[in-house]
Amino acid sequence: MEKGIITILSGFSGAGKGTIVKKLVEKYDNYALSISATTRKPRAGEENGREYFFKTVEEFEQMIENNELIEYASYVNNYYGTPRDYVESQLLQGKDVILEIELQGAMKVKEQNPEVVLIFVTPPSADELKNRLIGRGTEDMDTINARLKRAVYESEFMDRYDYLLINDDLETCVEKLHSIIQSEHYSVKRNIERINSIREDIKIFSEGE
Amino acid sequence: MEKGIITILSGFSGAGKGTIVKKLVEKYDNYALSISATTRKPRAGEENGREYFFKTVEEFEQMIENNELIEYASYVNNYYGTPRDYVESQLLQGKDVILEIELQGAMKVKEQNPEVVLIFVTPPSADELKNRLIGRGTEDMDTINARLKRAVYESEFMDRYDYLLINDDLETCVEKLHSIIQSEHYSVKRNIERINSIREDIKIFSEGE
Repeated sequence: MEKGIITILSGFSGAGKGTIVKKLVEKYDNYALSISATTRKPRAGEENGREYFFKTVEEFEQMIENNELIEYASYVNNYYGTPRDYVESQLLQGKDVILEIELQGAMKVKEQNPEVVLIFVTPPSADELKNRLIGRGTEDMDTINARLKRAVYESEFMDRYDYLLINDDLETCVEKLHSIIQSEHYSVKRNIERINSIREDIKIFSEGE
Repeated sequence: MEKGIITILSGFSGAGKGTIVKKLVEKYDNYALSISATTRKPRAGEENGREYFFKTVEEFEQMIENNELIEYASYVNNYYGTPRDYVESQLLQGKDVILEIELQGAMKVKEQNPEVVLIFVTPPSADELKNRLIGRGTEDMDTINARLKRAVYESEFMDRYDYLLINDDLETCVEKLHSIIQSEHYSVKRNIERINSIREDIKIFSEGE
């Protein structure tokens, strides 16, 4: 069986990454969504091993120590990270694994694994970005403004990604994402073994020269 | 309107390139198939401007002189080449243009235009390649053997391509090809202008700092 591909989805807060990924995983069964480990407390309705792997600070720091995380970061006094084990086991089962992680994490993972596919998700325009954040109605204007300023910073890194995914329409966007990841499977750099095997087989035809 | 992308399809004789491209163009209307110019005589049923642009040697050499060909080559005392005008006008209309040209031509075009997408088409195995050539029933064994030896040579260049397209099933193969070309439209390197425009727009949010 062909090993899966790791795809990292980053992008502006409000770009709709979560919804896109949820739809993708529902629609196609060749994907697995990576589950993060975190030291933040579970919220009502969250389940260990579904939304997150919930860890104590000691457990998390032990995971760092043991190199059990592909990447990790700390926000608002909580750790968040991507457990290597889960991702590896999904890849070996032929699943394409989606990681929804932010800028610095994405850059770190790409540095260690250049074969990772980096996708940056953005609403079609800056206005649309603002409208979506306000439309969510879950945050005060200070938080929204902080997210927008963060977006200005993040936009400087867009060209470090492999693909730009413009989220204008959810269904279209899910199809584009699927297309990108499947096409990556056909890239020559991911098929060197197969190419070498075809070259070997085909040599039989040069006999008798 | 977004400018189209040039995709070059090469691959072993018998890989089914012609059939794949024909199906692709029938199924999706965003593609245009490049029409070659040639000095060979039209066969029964062939029409100027449909199968080929038929030219005299003098006309063809004038086109070379005037840099009106993206690439050209000579086989069996006939010239074959890709007229630049037709390709450019299709690209400007937003069409993705497919060129079905062989190895050397492909390499030459890629050298001049690194943004061209190179796809190598192959049957799933060496045996299958041989069976298909024999199955066509249009050529004697000498010609088939010459094609197979040519395939050995061509296989050395497979890793110079961007994508490997394995033609095991026609419908699947057409979908894969469509997926590859569409995904290329979302690549960051083809969206630098759009990225810069988002960056510009978004800067409004850093005001007031």
